[in-house]
Amino acid sequence: MSKHTISITKTTNPKPRPDENNLVFGKYYSDHMFIMDYDAGQGWHDPRVVPYGNISLDPAAKVFHYGQTIFEGLKAYRTDDNRVVLFRPDENWKRLNRSNDRLSIPAVDPEIAFEALCALIDVDREWVPSAPGTSLYIRPYVIATEPQLGVSPSTKYMFMIILCPVGAYYSEGLNPVPIHVESEYVRAVKGGVGNAKTAGNYAASLKAQEGAAALGYSQVLWLDGVHRKYIEEVGSMNVFFKINGTVVTPALNGSILEGITRKSVLQLLRSWNIPVEERELSIDELVEAHRNGKLEEAFGTGTAAVISPIGALHYQDEKLTINEGKTGELSSRVYDTITGIQRTELPDPFGWVVEV
Amino acid sequence: MSKHTISITKTTNPKPRPDENNLVFGKYYSDHMFIMDYDAGQGWHDPRVVPYGNISLDPAAKVFHYGQTIFEGLKAYRTDDNRVVLFRPDENWKRLNRSNDRLSIPAVDPEIAFEALCALIDVDREWVPSAPGTSLYIRPYVIATEPQLGVSPSTKYMFMIILCPVGAYYSEGLNPVPIHVESEYVRAVKGGVGNAKTAGNYAASLKAQEGAAALGYSQVLWLDGVHRKYIEEVGSMNVFFKINGTVVTPALNGSILEGITRKSVLQLLRSWNIPVEERELSIDELVEAHRNGKLEEAFGTGTAAVISPIGALHYQDEKLTINEGKTGELSSRVYDTITGIQRTELPDPFGWVVEV
Repeated sequence: MSKHTISITKTTNPKPRPDENNLVFGKYYSDHMFIMDYDAGQGWHDPRVVPYGNISLDPAAKVFHYGQTIFEGLKAYRTDDNRVVLFRPDENWKRLNRSNDRLSIPAVDPEIAFEALCALIDVDREWVPSAPGTSLYIRPYVIATEPQLGVSPSTKYMFMIILCPVGAYYSEGLNPVPIHVESEYVRAVKGGVGNAKTAGNYAASLKAQEGAAALGYSQVLWLDGVHRKYIEEVGSMNVFFKINGTVVTPALNGSILEGITRKSVLQLLRSWNIPVEERELSIDELVEAHRNGKLEEAFGTGTAAVISPIGALHYQDEKLTINEGKTGELSSRVYDTITGIQRTELPDPFGWVVEV
Repeated sequence: MSKHTISITKTTNPKPRPDENNLVFGKYYSDHMFIMDYDAGQGWHDPRVVPYGNISLDPAAKVFHYGQTIFEGLKAYRTDDNRVVLFRPDENWKRLNRSNDRLSIPAVDPEIAFEALCALIDVDREWVPSAPGTSLYIRPYVIATEPQLGVSPSTKYMFMIILCPVGAYYSEGLNPVPIHVESEYVRAVKGGVGNAKTAGNYAASLKAQEGAAALGYSQVLWLDGVHRKYIEEVGSMNVFFKINGTVVTPALNGSILEGITRKSVLQLLRSWNIPVEERELSIDELVEAHRNGKLEEAFGTGTAAVISPIGALHYQDEKLTINEGKTGELSSRVYDTITGIQRTELPDPFGWVVEV
């Protein structure tokens, strides 16, 4: 904290903390937030922890009109011995700056970002919940604030971090969900911003998500925008399939988000000597594998759920049930291991966990 | 104004108006703005004209994180006899709601939108500049304001209109610009949000625009995301080419914005009995036409510039100069006619102009 002087203003009006057994994702926010400003010529300046509250922006701020914004997502966990730990925060700062670069936003020094997060968590340490399965979701983000309607990179930005305590994603164990294979809409395409964690990707996904929900499916499986046949992601998660003993996930191709859980799952599987392939995977290959009884498991990976088993795929009026709609053995093993490492209940052979 | 009661609160602190001969696009804002709120279950409510000023939003507002926002752009002109007129505002409200639909945002009643704009312009009538070539740029937009980090459509929105006086786009006549044909990045793809006027499309374009500028080009010519060879748009404008006497523009294919100037240019050309084709147009066809001396003119169309002549295309280390880098005869005729109609200096055979 010594190098970058982060000023801290504590709230005089702390909020009651929500019941840890009834937390809803992204609904409750802690007492404080972190803000740092950027001005062209001056760089990032005035890092500060302040009481959580509304921000005031000019109605012409570029974020409202041209979507120049990026974000990250990670979690803090309270351990059994009452420490607070993060999972691979360095990976978030790396991706934050890859996203910044794609969106023509100035880089944020990872060291400052980490110190900012430490300072904020330190002030709101009591907001890290301790009930089983709960965690503190951390949302760092950058928004363009220059009040100017020309289509050009902003000269002003805010880097912010907000915190929300979130409940157990699975209250009664892993719950496989049915997924609709999307054939009308696409999420992203090579040459676009699909591999950046930026607002527009999520805005573009809402319509398809609503359509899938109307059909009774939890999420969509996205196909590529060029050939409309290669698997990309599931909802806002990366996706893995176990086919005849080999785990296959779409290769990073420029339109797929470089998930940190994805990367961790791959490292874990390889350490277990399970055959893993990162490559193009077509929906036709999946259908064929299912027909031959070789599509053994399927799951999404992301920060919120860690592992989200897929119980069935709905494709062209056909329903492909996977593993009888039950959570697969490997899916469970991956979930148990990663969440065990995250909560320091298991050894951390990869050095993924950082105490704050 | 009778049907929808728009409350009006006038500023007690009017700003000095900027020098009409030194207006910069999107930099100065008028004294007032229009706001209307949406809440699920209640619909759009509380339409109001208030003094222009910062808006206060929760840092978790969905617009910052998931880009659920759309906008429009149109202009008001002061006529020689001191009236204020708009150009085809109905088309803006139609497109606004097509964009809203794509982004899962509730529709805005076009009648309310028009009344809102009339009420706002009425209060800020003095802000419509009168110097030659100037106009009042109008920016209606919707932002998602619910403070909730789940990826789902917002339950709260704001519809706003802000106004900025803008200068003559061309101070010394139409000025042809050199354009870089973009081969690395793409703007949009079929199945995505390219035909919606939403923030993410503009965020995605910044990086390519910076690259073109570094090479000395004003803008990029976008190729399609699937085949990487069909022309889509130029910068944030639609694009037209005169090839051997026929005017060709890319057909609306789902990834191209349905420009109102584009539509007007097409109507005008057809009324002049000039052959017009809306179809797929590949960069190879353009290069071939140029080689054969048949690429006669090229221009972009949009609300800001109306017509922006293209003097040269930079493609694969080759520079294709068009019409000796000068503004074409047809480009000038289209520009003069549309701007003449917009300013009521020419007859309005299509009924495009609306007095407010």
